[in-house]
Amino acid sequence: MPYVNIRLAGTLSREQKEEMCAGVTKVIAEVTKKPEDSILIFVDEEQHENIAKGGKLLKKPA
Amino acid sequence: MPYVNIRLAGTLSREQKEEMCAGVTKVIAEVTKKPEDSILIFVDEEQHENIAKGGKLLKKPA
Amino acid sequence: MPYVNIRLAGTLSREQKEEMCAGVTKVIAEVTKKPEDSILIFVDEEQHENIAKGGKLLKKPA
Amino acid sequence: MPYVNIRLAGTLSREQKEEMCAGVTKVIAEVTKKPEDSILIFVDEEQHENIAKGGKLLKKPA
Amino acid sequence: MPYVNIRLAGTLSREQKEEMCAGVTKVIAEVTKKPEDSILIFVDEEQHENIAKGGKLLKKPA
Amino acid sequence: MPYVNIRLAGTLSREQKEEMCAGVTKVIAEVTKKPEDSILIFVDEEQHENIAKGGKLLKKPA
Repeated sequence: MPYVNIRLAGTLSREQKEEMCAGVTKVIAEVTKKPEDSILIFVDEEQHENIAKGGKLLKKPA
Repeated sequence: MPYVNIRLAGTLSREQKEEMCAGVTKVIAEVTKKPEDSILIFVDEEQHENIAKGGKLLKKPA
Repeated sequence: MPYVNIRLAGTLSREQKEEMCAGVTKVIAEVTKKPEDSILIFVDEEQHENIAKGGKLLKKPA
Repeated sequence: MPYVNIRLAGTLSREQKEEMCAGVTKVIAEVTKKPEDSILIFVDEEQHENIAKGGKLLKKPA
Repeated sequence: MPYVNIRLAGTLSREQKEEMCAGVTKVIAEVTKKPEDSILIFVDEEQHENIAKGGKLLKKPA
Repeated sequence: MPYVNIRLAGTLSREQKEEMCAGVTKVIAEVTKKPEDSILIFVDEEQHENIAKGGKLLKKPA
């Protein structure tokens, strides 16, 4: 039942999402002793200009 | 003032969103005695590969 | 896998939460054809003074 | 470290996002005495038909 | 209808929340041309040990 | 800048939160090539009766 939301700028490949979600799930299951199968992750890939740090929009890397 | 966020994989038709939001609003208003008009719902339609269960990305249904 | 977050001011009784979550789950399952068992709801009971509408904090009902 | 999420219907221009994020960051930094640079904002631009008020989907303005 | 969530470590006084919510509402209304009255803010006051930056839990200020 | 929210039922010890946040941060940094220091995690420890699965509130483990 743990719910995880990961929000980041830009896009990830399918392989990166697979690896990230597998790894995050493993860590949370190990530390909390909750079953891996109960862990639900939502990944939000956002545009750089929709995220601000210190009041300034992020710039898309060249 | 209740705020509701519904996140799910795939897309819904406009009719499905209308029916879902009307129904969810009615249930919450009835149980909590808060006015229907104060209830705000955001529906997030996500790609299957951006959701993981048990560390594995969801597969798009065939 | 649908994830639902319901945020509201004040507290609900256990019975209200049971009724609300059962009802919301039923509506979403019926409309989206997703299995009831896959629907995860988090209810956030917030203090009135932590919610603002139109720039003014909500008042606790007398 | 404050995290801010602003969700709204429709789209904003880059200039509007810049102005909104700069202004919101300034207000939060001044009131909370936390450094501007630590404030992270995510702006979610949503379709009108994915937001419901009072159980009815928002209509796109003509 | 804009929904805003502000999450931060520690607690704020009622006066700080009033000032912060009034200010954030004003900025968003001005930039987006949406009515102030439609803006809904939830403030989440979190424990320092429930927030991590760079993988380390925040320390409560002395 | 990645923002992570981990929501779960029950409470964790400070040590568990430290280990979980360090591990999750490491995984995300490695996969996304974003600096560890930019990753912000909020952990929400929720009451069992505020989470429902399949329309039924979670039971507190005996």
